Amino acid sequence: MIIVGERINTSRKGLEPAVKSRDAAFIQAEAESQLKAGSTYIDVNCGTLLGDEPEALSWLVRTVQEKTDAALCIDSPNPAALAAALKFHKGKALINSISGESGRYEPVVSLIQEYKASVVALAMDDAGMPSTVKDRLAAADRLITRLTKDGVAVEDIYIDPLIQPISTDGTQAMAVFETISTIMKAYPGIHTICGLSNVSFGLPGRGLLNRSFVIMCITAGLDAVICDPLNTEMIKAIYAAEALSGRDEFCMEYIDAFRAGRLA
Amino acid sequence: MIIVGERINTSRKGLEPAVKSRDAAFIQAEAESQLKAGSTYIDVNCGTLLGDEPEALSWLVRTVQEKTDAALCIDSPNPAALAAALKFHKGKALINSISGESGRYEPVVSLIQEYKASVVALAMDDAGMPSTVKDRLAAADRLITRLTKDGVAVEDIYIDPLIQPISTDGTQAMAVFETISTIMKAYPGIHTICGLSNVSFGLPGRGLLNRSFVIMCITAGLDAVICDPLNTEMIKAIYAAEALSGRDEFCMEYIDAFRAGRLA
Repeated sequence: MIIVGERINTSRKGLEPAVKSRDAAFIQAEAESQLKAGSTYIDVNCGTLLGDEPEALSWLVRTVQEKTDAALCIDSPNPAALAAALKFHKGKALINSISGESGRYEPVVSLIQEYKASVVALAMDDAGMPSTVKDRLAAADRLITRLTKDGVAVEDIYIDPLIQPISTDGTQAMAVFETISTIMKAYPGIHTICGLSNVSFGLPGRGLLNRSFVIMCITAGLDAVICDPLNTEMIKAIYAAEALSGRDEFCMEYIDAFRAGRLA
Repeated sequence: MIIVGERINTSRKGLEPAVKSRDAAFIQAEAESQLKAGSTYIDVNCGTLLGDEPEALSWLVRTVQEKTDAALCIDSPNPAALAAALKFHKGKALINSISGESGRYEPVVSLIQEYKASVVALAMDDAGMPSTVKDRLAAADRLITRLTKDGVAVEDIYIDPLIQPISTDGTQAMAVFETISTIMKAYPGIHTICGLSNVSFGLPGRGLLNRSFVIMCITAGLDAVICDPLNTEMIKAIYAAEALSGRDEFCMEYIDAFRAGRLA
């Protein structure tokens, strides 16, 4: 499983002051703890800082990579912020995100090409936020066609099916399940990625729903997830789902995690 | 979700002495706690008692129904024991189980007809224990055809896809997933049922695997499960999976369970 550690985000408590004051030690400790917990990418997001976002995002990239070899997931809807941050990124970055929306696709695809980055591709375009499987697949198909035509390898595309809360529409989790399952079969080599917490918005007992949802998504074929790797219950669910879905040969990773005390 | 409470089974610690000594209060307390925890059926199994099984099984039926209105899941591969127990059962029983095996099908189908019972139908016959989706579906198809021809309503059939340990074959959980999904679509009105613990046989951290597996199965359409309803982590996983799979309208049961402290 590709785990994108989501903790360095200024919408999280305590993070905005740390970024505003350029507290490098705080940010580096957050990055290191997430890597130790199994993150493949460290997400950096400072979207709450508005005018300062480009400068702050590029500071985050430099600050994290000063202490680790981690590849970063550079997270902003703002192409100017992405550009400022990519200039300093070492290695292959994961850009988060592109969509088929006018005004967003073109500047972001130029950055993917320039930096040979991977990209999270939201299954939406000017038709708006999708709610059915059909809408999601149509938007994803259009975006994959466009990206590959623009020279992006299918292996560099991470489709995000855009989960919406089940509290307002009980079909949303199964719609994402079907979308992931269809895309993983239709485009060999592609990735699917999902943030989880939106699924439980408006409900109590959110942690239980989020970690149950990741099991559904992995059953469908999801191979990347944006989550807090320090959430031990979430990591346990991911280990179990990998073993059950047949991706963990002889359950060796599950057994190793158990021995290391990570399933307790 | 139809929950079959599995605690009254002489292979469980403490149960065999209670049945041998005909300790009615002990058995009745086990039944009542499982009903309170949400069981639809109370399973009764005294397969370890061999020669005494028919008499002990009929005593279990009388003893549980003396104190509750619960319908029982009468659990034995021995048609003579099923017959002895069904004689005393009030209401519609769930017989556990029939299969397509010679010498087993005929006597059990007679009991289903005589008592208008529902039945757990194991997806196997003389071809042996199935290991692939194809083998499971073929055995299930043959059994459903035979049962419905013999007058059993499809709504009274609970197909058990027979999970085998992922420790020896990593494809088993996904094979059961596909089997459930296919059967639920192919035979509207049918039920699927699964015991869970076999999936994790031979591995550490079994509870985590078992409750993750139930989420996969519910995603596939499973609507009945044989489990210990006093296992709170298992029940939490079932509530979450029901909400995520869109079967829990407006997540009302999930919200109610949270309010009642059952998701803590």
